[in-house]
Amino acid sequence: MKPTAAILSVGNEVLRGSVVNTNAAFLGRELSGLGFEVISHGVCADSIEAIRFRLGEVLRRVDLIIMMGGLGPTPDDVTREGIAAHFKVPLVFSPRQYSQLQKVYKRYGKRVPALVKREAFYPENARPLVNRFGIALGFSIEIGSKIVIALPGVPSELQNMYFDVVLPFLKKKYGNLFKYKKLIVKMAGISEPDVMKKLGKDFFDDLFDFGIYPSAGEIAIRILAEEAAVLGRLKKKIATRLKGWIYGWDETPLSVVIGKILTRKKQTLAAAESCTGGFLAARITACPGASAYFRGGVIAYHADVKTDLGVPEKLIKERGEVSAQVASQLAKSVRIRMGSSFGIGITGIAGPGGGSSTKPVGLVYIGLASPDGTVRTWKHVFWGERYQIQDKAATKALEYLWRKIC
Amino acid sequence: MKPTAAILSVGNEVLRGSVVNTNAAFLGRELSGLGFEVISHGVCADSIEAIRFRLGEVLRRVDLIIMMGGLGPTPDDVTREGIAAHFKVPLVFSPRQYSQLQKVYKRYGKRVPALVKREAFYPENARPLVNRFGIALGFSIEIGSKIVIALPGVPSELQNMYFDVVLPFLKKKYGNLFKYKKLIVKMAGISEPDVMKKLGKDFFDDLFDFGIYPSAGEIAIRILAEEAAVLGRLKKKIATRLKGWIYGWDETPLSVVIGKILTRKKQTLAAAESCTGGFLAARITACPGASAYFRGGVIAYHADVKTDLGVPEKLIKERGEVSAQVASQLAKSVRIRMGSSFGIGITGIAGPGGGSSTKPVGLVYIGLASPDGTVRTWKHVFWGERYQIQDKAATKALEYLWRKIC
Repeated sequence: MKPTAAILSVGNEVLRGSVVNTNAAFLGRELSGLGFEVISHGVCADSIEAIRFRLGEVLRRVDLIIMMGGLGPTPDDVTREGIAAHFKVPLVFSPRQYSQLQKVYKRYGKRVPALVKREAFYPENARPLVNRFGIALGFSIEIGSKIVIALPGVPSELQNMYFDVVLPFLKKKYGNLFKYKKLIVKMAGISEPDVMKKLGKDFFDDLFDFGIYPSAGEIAIRILAEEAAVLGRLKKKIATRLKGWIYGWDETPLSVVIGKILTRKKQTLAAAESCTGGFLAARITACPGASAYFRGGVIAYHADVKTDLGVPEKLIKERGEVSAQVASQLAKSVRIRMGSSFGIGITGIAGPGGGSSTKPVGLVYIGLASPDGTVRTWKHVFWGERYQIQDKAATKALEYLWRKIC
Repeated sequence: MKPTAAILSVGNEVLRGSVVNTNAAFLGRELSGLGFEVISHGVCADSIEAIRFRLGEVLRRVDLIIMMGGLGPTPDDVTREGIAAHFKVPLVFSPRQYSQLQKVYKRYGKRVPALVKREAFYPENARPLVNRFGIALGFSIEIGSKIVIALPGVPSELQNMYFDVVLPFLKKKYGNLFKYKKLIVKMAGISEPDVMKKLGKDFFDDLFDFGIYPSAGEIAIRILAEEAAVLGRLKKKIATRLKGWIYGWDETPLSVVIGKILTRKKQTLAAAESCTGGFLAARITACPGASAYFRGGVIAYHADVKTDLGVPEKLIKERGEVSAQVASQLAKSVRIRMGSSFGIGITGIAGPGGGSSTKPVGLVYIGLASPDGTVRTWKHVFWGERYQIQDKAATKALEYLWRKIC
């Protein structure tokens, strides 16, 4: 039996939708990756009564609750008080945390403001979890075999604290889970139904736990098993049945995998984007260290910019801005202009306007110019909203580049 | 008293974090904008028992529940069954919905697959809500004064159905709410505490409902009141006290406001980005119609690309790639190269590596070249992770452009 977990966020800004709850997705991924069965996410208001009530409801049904948000210094932050109310315990003061706060403020030549003194309090039945990434104290409470953990809601603090203090704590408490071994498979260019069909029904048995996670043209498979031998067998099967689609055996995203290959081969990349308008470059430069292999790009939105880059005016007139020939020329020209090993060119119609019966919204041409001077182009018609078409086109371009260099 | 609402998603993929729950944020924003008090979000598993149980828990405490997800054709989609189990009613068949499905499939020369026949079923006590954007039927159930609405989980379908059928339905059922009038204020370049300080304590009274929503360097205020005269008075006060920060009085985002001004003035824009690596261009080209005013951009990542664009090598050597002079030259050069009215140049250190004591991670210079040939530059040190620094720098650049053209 897997232990069960729930994620409970506190915050009116989440309820009212001014913040998207990425914390819940992060913890959902981490906890289910460890082998917890995550059975609920919840969000409740910044109110002692709401926190007390919801904590009680959830705690009856799960082994582990991770709460987040409402641990700040302002009066609307009442998660400490709500949890203490549930357990009918007072809040107590931590001199150690207070001297930590004093140190932080001293660095800026300031004294701890009266408001912030609240940050040194925690429920009497809790143990502090030190936050090295901000001023809010986290804490954990054990009630019999059940555990409640409270963390700050700022995503970067939450994630840093998760790896710094929560994961080691869970390792100690749920040692059994950590005996599970994990197999990760990352794929590009294949759909979820096709992955399932290629794996086949005979692939599955009771010796492992299987999860499949599609997102923006990529697929991740995560498998947990007690025995390394089982995973070894599965890995062989997967490598055979999904040959040609797998770009990695860990969590590294495609853009980073490409970056590593290019860095190793001392090759570089440049991109000329029309309909994706910077999405591809932004995806690549979101990765730390991108400057080692990404030389730069051109957003060739207006026809003049395409011409300036080296796409002949005549070609644009004859074939149209959205054509295989223009994608090819964009790739070729940006590679030469930026002095890179590879050049990617993308042109298409992201919509919602600009489509016609011969060139519908979603039509995208991708060109890839290689170090030997050759260029290949591909044609796609992507389905969806403007941002989905831009997203899928960028992913597809990365996939073609990966196939070329891997 | 405001009516209360809850948002309940169904789906293992959400629990496991392979999907971020943007639906909940969308509905949270919409419902609280209408005047509902959204008191909880929840996510439960694809299981009849989990849905039945959680629906029961939530329904006791709110007036309106909007559920989403689990209405697809595959066997793991059991929201229909879970809701029917809660109300102890059978599922019934809708011949009208089935003939709708037949029409959709006929368009592709196909017959309705056996699996998909499930899409024509709904709980006996429900009324169908027709989905013109996909094959999953939505439905609403009224129990005394309480209402449960079930919608498909695909974000674009959910949003389209919300405006198409849910909003008119809510208007009929909660006519009282729709007598509220709304005042929206959008600001850039000011922090939430500063907005509150400038409004002052005497701004607030019991005649209206006030919400403030910061995100990535922009602030939205949403105010609801019964009387138009109250909103008129508030609007005057806000216009005076927050003068110089307000860029709009409706939901339009800054990038679209800028696009509208440029289009009206027949002016154009180009951008040369180093540390933001395409984020700014992607933000601009995410708006439909951007081709009317955005000519293109250069992602000048490598020093050579900066030189090629027109930044003198000597300047880079003397001042460094991250300097006011390079930002200025990037703005000037991209404006000339792309033949645009305005040019934006951004250079900085997004981190996590590459910082030093004199040029720390987060240091960003922004340059803005104007039609008269002049250039202004600004220096900032942004705090946060790599993507936050890129995000804030892009927003700041948009703010400076807006200040120049508004």
